[in-house]
Parts: sequence; C-alpha cells; structure tokens
Amino acid sequence: MAEGLHSDGRSALAGSAVLVTGGLGFIGSNLAIALRDAGAKVTVVDSLSAGDGGNRENLRAEANIEIVVADIAQNEVIVPLIERCDFAFNLSGKVSHIDSVNDPLADLHANATSQLRFLESCRRHKPSLPIIYTSTRQIYGKADTTTVTEDSPIRPIDPNGISKFAADAYHRMFARDFGMRTAVLRLTNTSGPRQLLAHNRQGFIPWFIRTALEAGEITIYGDGRQTRDIAYVDDVVDAMLRVARLPELSGQVFNVGSPFIHSVAEVAELAVELAGRGRLRLIPFPEEKKKIDVGSVACDYAAITRATGWLPKTGLREGMARTIEFYRPRLAAYL
Amino acid sequence: MAEGLHSDGRSALAGSAVLVTGGLGFIGSNLAIALRDAGAKVTVVDSLSAGDGGNRENLRAEANIEIVVADIAQNEVIVPLIERCDFAFNLSGKVSHIDSVNDPLADLHANATSQLRFLESCRRHKPSLPIIYTSTRQIYGKADTTTVTEDSPIRPIDPNGISKFAADAYHRMFARDFGMRTAVLRLTNTSGPRQLLAHNRQGFIPWFIRTALEAGEITIYGDGRQTRDIAYVDDVVDAMLRVARLPELSGQVFNVGSPFIHSVAEVAELAVELAGRGRLRLIPFPEEKKKIDVGSVACDYAAITRATGWLPKTGLREGMARTIEFYRPRLAAYL
Repeated sequence: MAEGLHSDGRSALAGSAVLVTGGLGFIGSNLAIALRDAGAKVTVVDSLSAGDGGNRENLRAEANIEIVVADIAQNEVIVPLIERCDFAFNLSGKVSHIDSVNDPLADLHANATSQLRFLESCRRHKPSLPIIYTSTRQIYGKADTTTVTEDSPIRPIDPNGISKFAADAYHRMFARDFGMRTAVLRLTNTSGPRQLLAHNRQGFIPWFIRTALEAGEITIYGDGRQTRDIAYVDDVVDAMLRVARLPELSGQVFNVGSPFIHSVAEVAELAVELAGRGRLRLIPFPEEKKKIDVGSVACDYAAITRATGWLPKTGLREGMARTIEFYRPRLAAYL
Repeated sequence: MAEGLHSDGRSALAGSAVLVTGGLGFIGSNLAIALRDAGAKVTVVDSLSAGDGGNRENLRAEANIEIVVADIAQNEVIVPLIERCDFAFNLSGKVSHIDSVNDPLADLHANATSQLRFLESCRRHKPSLPIIYTSTRQIYGKADTTTVTEDSPIRPIDPNGISKFAADAYHRMFARDFGMRTAVLRLTNTSGPRQLLAHNRQGFIPWFIRTALEAGEITIYGDGRQTRDIAYVDDVVDAMLRVARLPELSGQVFNVGSPFIHSVAEVAELAVELAGRGRLRLIPFPEEKKKIDVGSVACDYAAITRATGWLPKTGLREGMARTIEFYRPRLAAYL
C-alpha cells in the first residue's frame, strides 16, 4: 500500500465504490463531489430530516452521484449499500447544539442509536468495510487549555456532545473489539459552500454570511473577541480522503483543526467586507447561550499531520470569499 | 437543612415519598428496604427485563414497598409516580459488560435512551425532584493510574461504559442547564445479598459465591492477582442516602469506592472458606475477556467523604459472610 501513507488519497480512491452517509449535508456533499471528481463511484445516503443540514440543492447540479434518501438505521436499505461499497464515510447525524438542548431524545436517536445500528449492520454484513466517522471538537467541551489534543478530557457540555461522543467511542470500540476498520475525525468549526443557511442553529459562520448577503445586521454576543480555529471544507475533505487511505484503520482518532484562528468579530467583519453589504452589532451574551459556549479553544492536529502529511491550506479570507461567491447566485435555494 | 450535611441521611427521609428505579435489582432492593426501614414511603419501579438484575424474589418477603413493573421510558406510568414523590433514586439500567458487547443496542436503549426519557419526564413534570443516579467506575476504563478520581479521563472500554457515561453526563447536564437537582454516584464493584446469581455476566463475586455454595469449581482467569476495591451494599446504600440529603443537589459527581482491596484469588478463597465448600482452578485469561478487563484499579472516594462524611465500614470477610448466609437458605430462588 505504498500509495497510502502521505499521499493525498484522491487517486487511490479512483474506481472504488464509496458510500457517504449524510451525503446531502454540508461536508458530506462536498466530500461526495470530491470523490466523484477523483473517479470514485459515489452513493450518498441521507435522511433529509427536517431542520438538519441535508439539502437536495447541494447535489442538484452534480452528475454521477447516486442519492438514496434513508436513515442509516434502516437495515433493509443500508445492508445492500454497504455490501457493494469499498469505503464508507460516515457523516450522518445532527450537529446543532441548540436543537440538542431543545430535543435531546431526537439528538440521541440520530447520533448514537442510528450510528450504532449502522455499525452493527456493517459488523454483521461487511466487517471489512473501512469506515471514517466524523466526530466533533465539541466532545472536549470547555477545555482547561487553549488547545485540545486527542487525549484531552472528554467533557461534553450539551446533549449533542454526549451523543457524538457515544458514536465516536462506538467506532473506536468496534475496531478494537471486533477488528473493524474504523477511524474517527474530530472536526473543528468548518465552513464553506453547501452549509445550511435556513436557520442559525448550525454555527455562526454561515449565519453571518447569510445575514451579510441579505444586507442585514450581524449580531455578536459579548465583545466578539472569543476565537475559533476555522477550517475550510476542502481541507477537511482532504483530511478524510487521506485517512481513508492509511495502510491500516484500527480505531485511530484524529483532531482535524486549523491554524487559522480568528475572533468572532473578525469573521463578521470579513463577511460584511466580502459580501459588500450588511453591518455588525454587539449585544450582551444571552444566558442560555453562555452555558453551551466553549470559550476560545483550538484543536491540536499534529497527529493527523504526522500520520498522513495533511496540512490545512485555506485561510479564512480565501475560504470565505469562495463561500460567498458560491451562495451569492444561489441564496434563495438555501433559505 | 442542618440535618443534611454529615448526617447519615436515614432519619431525614422518614415520611418522604421515594421512588427507586431498578428497585427489584440488587442495589435497588437493598436501598428500598433501607428506605422503608427509615420510615419512607417507597415505590419501586422495575422493568424485570430478562437477564438483568431485577428479581421479584428480592422484595417478596418485604412489606410496605409498592412495586410497579414498568420501563422508566413509559411516560404514562412514570409521570404519576414522579409527581407524587419527594426523591428519586435512579438505579435502572443494564450492568453487564458481556451482554453489552453481545447486544449493544439493547444496552444503549436501556441505559441512555430510557434514562434520557426519564429525565425529560422529570424536567417537564417535576423539575424540582431530587434525583440520585448510579453510574459506574467502568466509565474510566483501563486507567493510567491505580486510583481513579472523578476527574480521571473518561475512557469506556465496552458499550456498557459508553451508555452509562451518556446517562451520567445527561444527569449532570440537566442540573447545569435546566437547574434540576441531580447527583451522580460512580460505584465500584459492589457485593451483598440480592445480587443476580442466575448467570455469570454481572460480576465475579456473586458467581464465586454461587459456585462455592453449589460445591463447584471456581474458575479464575490468569493468576488471580488482579485486585478490586470491593464495597458492601449497605455502605453503598448509606452513601446514596447521605447524598440525597445534601443541602443542594446540583449535578455533583462522586466516586463510591472502598478501602477494602482484594485480589480475585482472595475473593475466591474466602467464598470457599465461608461457604464451607467448593474449590478453585486457575486458567489462562480468555482473549475476549482480556479486552474488557480494566486491570487493577481502585476508586478514590475522598470527595464524597468530604461532602457527606461517608466512610465505608464493611470489609470483605464480614460482607461476604452476611451475603453467604443470606443466599444459603434461598439459593434455589436465585438460580
């Protein structure tokens, strides 16, 4: 497997049959397009559950990607798909912290129960299937340190962090206990085209972009100085492809962070500048949001660089410019 | 609330209406009896799900304890119960590590989904209800240190550890985010009367006792020198009562450990000695059990001692003698 280590992984996937769960969502759809462009036969499965990131618009203009609308817990749909696939990128799930507080049972069902059903389907019907699972930086919660490594304490601060940690741990455990070929990527804040703009419950960056494009007022909590490491979706997709082609998948866990660290206020200012419209307003931090804010924190990603050579390349200005140019002519389709 | 801090908690619960979930199980039934003896009006709810620790025999001879057979996820049964209760001790759940590997979905459902439903019922219908949840030392997994504190890394090594951690985290989060009155006790190995003997998937101590009483051969994996801190059930019940009477319940988490540390071989020898029958045999550690063995580890319980004055009193010999005398005339009812 000489092509695996430190290759960018794209060519190696040419001709492979690849399943992308959550493939109509933000990162999933960008990944599906990258895989197809690399010559893979791509099937996406997505439940299109209301209020989540799945959106048919994300792949409407894309040829040669098979779309199956189903929940990954639906055995009868999933088993035939995994039987004919060579790789699975498992991105299905809920990512909204606010939604998870409002309906923790739906969050647990989607992120833990459905994920465990998916893993059980794979274990019974295709235990050799390589599975790349996307976890989240949120499982570390409010860290004691400004940088979290893969060994930092697990302290989720909302139901979404609990359910994502359960699936993260199941994926690693199924590798260790059942010899399955899994890896877990814990993503930091990721931005780019195809992210949900319909509501403001899936991260502040897309909401700032939408508000700017609509010439509205971007509301910032507090002084806006809390910082985030912000990854661009193409870099995250690159990380996933590289990990998929590691010579061995054995439950490894990698942070997918970013060296591009910016304050919330900077992000808002850049959105206004690049959109050429909109404005900012600072307001006091609402009580209920304080509880689920993790403060200024960044992900240490030295481990994935060591293992795969991956390095994030796209800075905030470049990424946001591309994102805004993507949405500008398509805004209506994302509202 | 002068009686709360550092009192033993029993008298303070006199006259209170108390719900014990999992109350036909091992620790739940012992707790229910202690609560009734202290003058509380006790209702136990238990799903009596097959293979788990719930056993009608545990409370058959006990008067003045109301028994409701239901799953804690059954809203229509649970809501009227919590509405009339002053305290809830929440012990419902699966505790078998082996069962969780064989059927992780059932484990997740019982320990995370049902627990989250229960918490949601309480949040909607009785947010002021004090809830004491029993978690487990297993969520720390295979520790780097010989002693785990409440801040030790969370590294569950089996599905049961994942699902129990989810419920542990939900209980703490519901206190922080919704102002509910919860506390979480992470129990170490606990032994005593009323523990399941029907199979060997709920801990080695009851299985050793059963085997000795049946004059059988106790099988020990490896050299039997791996150690455990072993708590006696009456001490664990005492810890729960003390925590229930803390002046404030706000999502605290306490290890409930034991200073009585013994090797597996010592426990087996003592079972044979006290039962007056049975014998030992050492065999190599089976591969599949190696993966879920946590090695020699003990729980630091300084935090609960500081907060409540609790100290474990019953050593292994005394506890096991009482346990064997309990089972000797009743063995058939527990097989």
